[in-house]
This record gives sequence, structure tokens and C-alpha cells, in this order.
Amino acid sequence: MKVNRQIVLANRPVGMPDSSTFDLIETAIPVPKENEVLVRSHYLSVDPYMRGRMKNIKSYAKPFQVGEPLTGDSIGQVIVSNHPDFTSGEMVMGNFDWADYSIVEGSGLQKLNPAEAPITTNLHVTGMTGLTAYFGLLDIGNPKPGETVVVSGAAGAVGMVVGQITKIKNCRVVGITGSDDKVKFLKDELCFDEVINYKKAHDIHQALQDACPNGIDVYFDNVGGQISDAAISLLNFYGRVPLCGQISALNSEGTETGPRLFTTLIRRSILLKGFIYSDYKHRFEEGRKDLANWLKEGKLKYNENVVKGLENAPDAFLGLFRGENLGKQLVKIIE
Amino acid sequence: MKVNRQIVLANRPVGMPDSSTFDLIETAIPVPKENEVLVRSHYLSVDPYMRGRMKNIKSYAKPFQVGEPLTGDSIGQVIVSNHPDFTSGEMVMGNFDWADYSIVEGSGLQKLNPAEAPITTNLHVTGMTGLTAYFGLLDIGNPKPGETVVVSGAAGAVGMVVGQITKIKNCRVVGITGSDDKVKFLKDELCFDEVINYKKAHDIHQALQDACPNGIDVYFDNVGGQISDAAISLLNFYGRVPLCGQISALNSEGTETGPRLFTTLIRRSILLKGFIYSDYKHRFEEGRKDLANWLKEGKLKYNENVVKGLENAPDAFLGLFRGENLGKQLVKIIE
Repeated sequence: MKVNRQIVLANRPVGMPDSSTFDLIETAIPVPKENEVLVRSHYLSVDPYMRGRMKNIKSYAKPFQVGEPLTGDSIGQVIVSNHPDFTSGEMVMGNFDWADYSIVEGSGLQKLNPAEAPITTNLHVTGMTGLTAYFGLLDIGNPKPGETVVVSGAAGAVGMVVGQITKIKNCRVVGITGSDDKVKFLKDELCFDEVINYKKAHDIHQALQDACPNGIDVYFDNVGGQISDAAISLLNFYGRVPLCGQISALNSEGTETGPRLFTTLIRRSILLKGFIYSDYKHRFEEGRKDLANWLKEGKLKYNENVVKGLENAPDAFLGLFRGENLGKQLVKIIE
Repeated sequence: MKVNRQIVLANRPVGMPDSSTFDLIETAIPVPKENEVLVRSHYLSVDPYMRGRMKNIKSYAKPFQVGEPLTGDSIGQVIVSNHPDFTSGEMVMGNFDWADYSIVEGSGLQKLNPAEAPITTNLHVTGMTGLTAYFGLLDIGNPKPGETVVVSGAAGAVGMVVGQITKIKNCRVVGITGSDDKVKFLKDELCFDEVINYKKAHDIHQALQDACPNGIDVYFDNVGGQISDAAISLLNFYGRVPLCGQISALNSEGTETGPRLFTTLIRRSILLKGFIYSDYKHRFEEGRKDLANWLKEGKLKYNENVVKGLENAPDAFLGLFRGENLGKQLVKIIE
């Protein structure tokens, strides 16, 4: 391959993005400077939060720039290294362009050991989404044995780990998801206690109330909107709400409105906390160790949706909002 | 006096209560049983949260019952004691009826020492409202020196203490209140750094932004509604919001709507926590000690609105929602 294909942001989408949001361009393979590394992408991680970065808004991650490649967590191989810690041929993880090749600072790379676990698990159960679930659930949610945890977006990469850690901690977990196949997977494979298909539920409040006869102690929120309104209204005294994602709001313009919740929060001394996994950088080692152990012990299962070909990355991203992915959405760049 | 006057709930108000919400009835002076004490009320505490108890809703405090006397924090004198810890003539604090005389379990009474501090301060700066400010600000808000704290309802009994503790902790405090007299008092007497009269502010968001050039680190919320929307939109990364009261919502029926805030909370890793002072029962001693010391040292000032006569208690309560009180609203029952 002589050229470097890149997926760039063609324009800032208004509302739901579509294929015109992206361009595939061809450029020269870049040359690394001192302390830089040229990597070839093997796997890209596809994540809902990237929609937020398409907006020009101050947030924890810098906005994507129009005409520039998207970037995201990726796994690849070192091709040329000008950094003393890396040599060509090594497998590494870092924030790469959505491209065949990227230049990355050596300091931003992490070596991977393919003998330890399937290499892609570094992009989910023991990586960003796993750590998101781990710290959001355990640090903010802090569930006590026997309590009821509800997780929305339960069949996503974060939701699946939330549900399984909940079971490891001897709590009851109720998932909310959007298809019968996902319900079946979460119940049969991941041992969720109850799973609600919100698209079929007549009345999400009633369905949650039926599934949570002792109320809700922790609501792990990946979706926002009316599902969250219902869950919050059923929280017990001293309930906790890790606010992780708002997929329902990611594609909306302006400000959505909903019921004011503060009176409920006061009446029941409820905690809400927005967070991002990097808030816990100083505790990553602890989280990775627990997650890796649970993975080895078979207590943490996962599912990957793997799409092949860089050119299909945009559609894989759009699929997140169509609710297509069961577990982690990945793009495999090379065979 | 041969009879016992009581203020009872005449009916559950819909929307704003008025004088027809209350009845003054006359009954016999009750007789205490074993372990009970007959007290004569000297001062009643008048608090916004009592509006919540007029609704028939599960909350931290039991709803008031129609035809039954209202109750609240009060100070009075022991008339007859059937409890070994109390003797007649002692000054005590507890949850009394809004009445001339009440029967109280001895276990629910606390002895007061009038030599220590003006006796009514036990109903505010070193009592419920002071402890509310203390734990909400210090435990949930946790302001670091130099940070900016915004408090709404700043001229209320809670808000005044929040502002003063903020200064004691070497932070900047910006108050929001509803009259120029209150602005003047908070600035001149309590040394608030800035105070906004929200009724005169053209654009509360802009006014807050101007008053908080470094953004807001802690927003202590006593009011809810659009004032809170504006304050939350200006919170810094890792901002904290002690949710204490929602006076704007207390008299509304059904569910008010407002902008959905969760995306903002996630983007900036913001904490929101509803609470009531009794969540901190196990730490009351610590709080009372600090507050009493600050009071003695002159670091904690206060203002009381004292209305005379039990028969005027309902109007004193209604005055809270007209924004009439500067500081703590009390009713003095006997001369």
C-alpha cells in the first residue's frame, strides 16, 4: 500500500449524522519525527461519545476539526519507531487517526501482550468501556450486596460490563435495551436478573416498577431521556446515579426539555454524578487488574461487533444510533 | 390560660396556600403520660420545607394530616414532666405542635442553656438551618480556598450561613436574592463578594457570568427553576451542587419541565446531591461545635424575623413565599 486512507469529518452534522458527514481521502504515508512512532491500524474502537466531539463545544475531549481525520482508541502495529521504548513489529494501543497509518507520540502508546488475552479486549472489557463501567458503578454507584442496579444501554459495551460487575458484587441487575435478541443475550449469556425491551414496553415506568419490586438503588445511565426519567422516579432513599452517557441526546440540536427532577432528588437524598473514565486515571491499574482477573476467571464475558474495512467505519458509527451493536463495535482494518 | 390553641391544617392546598389552608382551634390542655413532657411553646420555627409536608407524598418527613396540628422545630418550657431527665421550668427544644402547649416524648427533647447564646439561635445558626448549610456546603460542596461558591435564596436562614461559612473557608461567595434591601444586608453585614437581585437582573445567566469571572465551583441550590438552570450552565469541571431546597417548585402542582441537564453534568463531571440535614445525624456534634464557635467569635451573624402571636403563624409561613423574610422566620408565642 503506497497511500494512507483517512476518514475525515466532512462537515459538522446537524441532528443525526449520515454518510455525508464523512469523507475518505487518500494522503501520503506520514513520516515520524523524533520520539514519534508510525503505526499501522489493526482495529478501531467505535464509540457514541465521538458524536459529541463532532460538535464545536467545550468538553473533556477536543472537538474534531472539519477536514481533519477522526481519532479514537485503536490497536495497531509499530512500523517505524523514533521513540526509544518501541521497536517495529510491536503491537500497541493508543489514540490513532481513523486511517491506515498514523503518527503517534511514543508517550501516548501502550504496549500490548497478545499472549495475555485476545488483543481486542484492550479496547473494551479491560480498556475504556470496561474502566468506564468499573469506576462509574463501583465508585459512584457503590452498590451494596442485595441492592438493585438498573442499567440502560445494557447491551452496549459499557452496559454489559456494568451488569456483570453488578452480579460479581452480589446485587440484582435489571437491564434496559432495545431488541428481543439483546434481551435474550443479556439474560442467557450474561445472567442479568431481568431485562426490559423498552421498544416493546407499553409503559417503561410500569415495566421498571414490575422488574424492581424493592425499588432502584443504583441507576447507571447510558441513555438519558424518558427512560432515565422513569428510572429516577423509582429510586430509593440514598439512590445513586452514575451519569455515563446520553445517547438519546447526542444527535439533538438545542436543549431538550424534560421534567424537573431536583425535588425528587432532595426528597430522597439522591446522588447524581457525571463522569468520564479518565477522571479515574490515578486508579486505572486497580481497575485493569480486577477486570483482567474477572476476564480470566470467566466472570466477565463480552461480545464484539466487528466490521471489516476502514471504508466501513462511518457506517459502523452510524449503526450505534440505530441500536445495531450487541456489545463493542470495532472496525478491523487489515486482515 | 385554660385552653390550648392549635394551628391545624384545614385542607391540603392546591398551588399557593393561603389563610384558608389553616384553622386555629381551641382544645383542652393535654396531660402527659409516662415518659412524656408537657411543654409550653415560646418560639416556633417557620420553614419552607413545611409546604412539602402539606402534600400527601412519601418524603423524609411524614405528611401533615388534615385536621391535625402542624408541627415543627420549637423552643419552650417544661410545664409538667413525666420523664426522669426533665423538670418543670427547664427550657427545651424539640418538635412541638404549632400550639400553646404540646405533649412531647422526653427522648425527643434537648435541654437548652440560655446562658450560652441567645436561645433562639438554637432554631437557626446552631440548629436545623445552620446544620443544613454546614453539611451541604462542606460535605457535598467541599469548596477549596479561592473557589467560587454561588448560593441562591442567599438571604434565607440557610443561605446566610452558607455564605458566611464560604468566607470562613477563604472562598469567594456570590449570592442570589430578591430585593435591594437583602442585597445590601448580605454585602454590608455578611461580607458577600457579590449579590445579584434576580428580580432586577435582565438576564440572570449574564448577571451570574459577570459576577463569576472564574466560573462556578459550587452552586448551593435553595430555589430551583431558571435560576438553577443558569447557575448549573456556568459550573466548572468537577463542579458540585448541594441540592437543599426548591422553593420555586414547592407550590406548583404536577411536574414542571425545564432543560435537560445531564449532558452538561457528564461533560464537566459534575456532582449533584440532594440532602437533608438529618442525613448527617451522626456528625451533628461536630457541626454544632463549629457553628457555636463561629457564632461566639463573631464570624457568624444572623438575622431573625420575629412575628408575635400564635395566631399570626400562618401568615408568617405564607410570607416565606412572598420573599419577606430576611434570615430566620420565627413566631414568638408568649411574652
